[in-house]
Amino acid sequence: MRLTPEINGERLLRRLSDFAEIGGTSVGGVNRQALSKEDCAARHLLADLATARGFKVFQDPIANLFLRREGRNPAQPPMLVGSHLDSQPTGGRFDGALGTLAAFEVLEALEDAGYDTEAAIEVVAWTNEEGSRFAPGVMGSMAFVGAAHPHDFQSLTASDGAYFTEELGATLAALPLAEMRPLGTPISAYLELHIEQGPSLEREGLAAGVVTAVQGTRWLTVTFLGNAGHAGTTSLGYRRDPMVAATLALSRLQASIMPQDEDARLTVGRFSAHPGSINAIPDKVTFTVDIRHPDAASVTSIDAKVRAACEEAALSQRCSVEITTSFDMPPGSFSKIMTDRIEAAAQALGLSYKRMISGAFHDALFVARVAPAAMIFVPCRDGISHNEAEYVEPTDIINGARLLLEATLKSAR
Amino acid sequence: MRLTPEINGERLLRRLSDFAEIGGTSVGGVNRQALSKEDCAARHLLADLATARGFKVFQDPIANLFLRREGRNPAQPPMLVGSHLDSQPTGGRFDGALGTLAAFEVLEALEDAGYDTEAAIEVVAWTNEEGSRFAPGVMGSMAFVGAAHPHDFQSLTASDGAYFTEELGATLAALPLAEMRPLGTPISAYLELHIEQGPSLEREGLAAGVVTAVQGTRWLTVTFLGNAGHAGTTSLGYRRDPMVAATLALSRLQASIMPQDEDARLTVGRFSAHPGSINAIPDKVTFTVDIRHPDAASVTSIDAKVRAACEEAALSQRCSVEITTSFDMPPGSFSKIMTDRIEAAAQALGLSYKRMISGAFHDALFVARVAPAAMIFVPCRDGISHNEAEYVEPTDIINGARLLLEATLKSAR
Repeated sequence: MRLTPEINGERLLRRLSDFAEIGGTSVGGVNRQALSKEDCAARHLLADLATARGFKVFQDPIANLFLRREGRNPAQPPMLVGSHLDSQPTGGRFDGALGTLAAFEVLEALEDAGYDTEAAIEVVAWTNEEGSRFAPGVMGSMAFVGAAHPHDFQSLTASDGAYFTEELGATLAALPLAEMRPLGTPISAYLELHIEQGPSLEREGLAAGVVTAVQGTRWLTVTFLGNAGHAGTTSLGYRRDPMVAATLALSRLQASIMPQDEDARLTVGRFSAHPGSINAIPDKVTFTVDIRHPDAASVTSIDAKVRAACEEAALSQRCSVEITTSFDMPPGSFSKIMTDRIEAAAQALGLSYKRMISGAFHDALFVARVAPAAMIFVPCRDGISHNEAEYVEPTDIINGARLLLEATLKSAR
Repeated sequence: MRLTPEINGERLLRRLSDFAEIGGTSVGGVNRQALSKEDCAARHLLADLATARGFKVFQDPIANLFLRREGRNPAQPPMLVGSHLDSQPTGGRFDGALGTLAAFEVLEALEDAGYDTEAAIEVVAWTNEEGSRFAPGVMGSMAFVGAAHPHDFQSLTASDGAYFTEELGATLAALPLAEMRPLGTPISAYLELHIEQGPSLEREGLAAGVVTAVQGTRWLTVTFLGNAGHAGTTSLGYRRDPMVAATLALSRLQASIMPQDEDARLTVGRFSAHPGSINAIPDKVTFTVDIRHPDAASVTSIDAKVRAACEEAALSQRCSVEITTSFDMPPGSFSKIMTDRIEAAAQALGLSYKRMISGAFHDALFVARVAPAAMIFVPCRDGISHNEAEYVEPTDIINGARLLLEATLKSAR
């Protein structure tokens, strides 16, 4: 007779706490950006824990990290469970880490119980989900499914000046014990646990969200070009000030997009002026725009409004504007088989839940292109994420991991 | 009989060209920011040229550089002539360098002619006039007249991460042959030649401006504080977005200050968002505001409008705002004795001129607190300055230097 595998909540909470120290900030958050020394340290710790439990460690050319617990039939494609270990520069300790460490807890629970599965189960930590140090995000899963190739990113440099290719090489080299495997090893299914990063589950008092779809995301980089000049001597008639154009366009967009469509999201997270001198009119102003909407046509229509407003503002200031798309993830749906399994698992465990759409994009949306995939959300306090104050109740962490284990066992018998 | 000193135009143009190579940019501009390696190299070259002509070299604790041609009576306070050698990050080759090198040409012309003066004449290159790497500007002249002390700047760091005290120390140490003298050595008068940095002289076809006053300048640093959050999941009602507040405030100010007062100048040259992630609502947005007006009361009233607009915008976005003043130079007038001398010199040379107010601030305005001072402006093409495309006609350069020599001789006989 075999034991029923059980999540060890204490161990999972301790692991979360241990990983939160890697890149931990003074106020309890995490700065563990993709391919940084801190990211390498977190990967190293996870690989060491896996090796200690007898799991095999693999990485692929984009540095996706895989921890494999062998199945009875090694020839079958594995079931994949996981998330990411990289964080925002002022991120929280649960975004990504929870899903990765809960998946690892699933493997450990199976190992503790001596519970064999037919196919292997692998934990994955995808590379650069956040996209804050090197844009775009979800790089690892994009490369895994063939939607991008590592070569596509070779000219990237980080905001801290680091080169992508060098940092990727250093990250791979930091795990010499990991066996290299090609991109896109076949898998049978994918599950990812994540915090909601929004307030709805907490407000409705639910233990979990069964994520059926993800809203679309598009990232634009807007550059206004004008004419540098002396702040004190250049009168209005002689100014071609890209700062005036940029703030004019943004104030109009901020007043017209989100207030008119409650499903729309418009965020400007990065903004710089060149040459950045207090007493010189800038010659160049650059900012990013993050557009989200559950409906593909609305993403396109917001994109068009951004372009029109920027062009109108540029014209009014005798400036020019260039707009490029740096990331474009259409809205997408998850596998009904997988969401039904999560739902059945929640019912079996007696956990309250609802079906819902994700406001954030996730690696799962790309993985869904090559295998049945779905996600489980757990509540986070006040919906706060991408913020050092991010917090998840221990009960919700443990229930999330139990649900992940149960849903995993429904897929990998 | 003594020779009449004559400006050597060819030599002056060659010197300008030589100095433009120090920090020279690919499009003919200059990046020679204060206390940088390039600034040190320019100081070194000027000191070497002075030594070669037998002039004495001094520096003071804020690294103002003095080149002294001795007078018949060394006990008399010297007449001071000069400008600055530092540039904006994407600056032109004439802003500062013209006034410094024309002053040095005056010394060389006197030396060539064996023309003795009663009091010594000294060329000065003031430290950090621009204030782009370390704010505020006109640091050297402020410290010279006692309006600031080097200690006041000891906590400054540059946008490139350098520490002010280290860079100042390195700059002083790079000229070991220069004799150290205390701040504020007495002087009898001060003259400064500079490009207009505005279009009026060129448009009116005049060779020179006799500068009678300088408009006031005030620099503010505005910081909006909000709440970081996830770009995809945070709906409008939960946002406290400092970027929205900042662009709202700026778009209102840009529409209401300069269009309503043709003497007013409002420039936002520096702007940043923290943490600077594409897909995170920022928690902090910071920008600078440069306010100018010839009338002191108007500077104060524009300052009040900026504060009111920022506070209103912060309130509307449930953010807070902090505003600090980093530099405040009230409008000021130059010495009538000195402007009369410049005017008489222009008439003697048959150069067209007008009396005018400066739109830019200059070291001369601080020096005017301790000695009779005035400035000479020469035209620059299209009024363009703080820009790599800055250009001055050779004729205007040489006429400017001739006028500086003539006006200097009227003050230092």
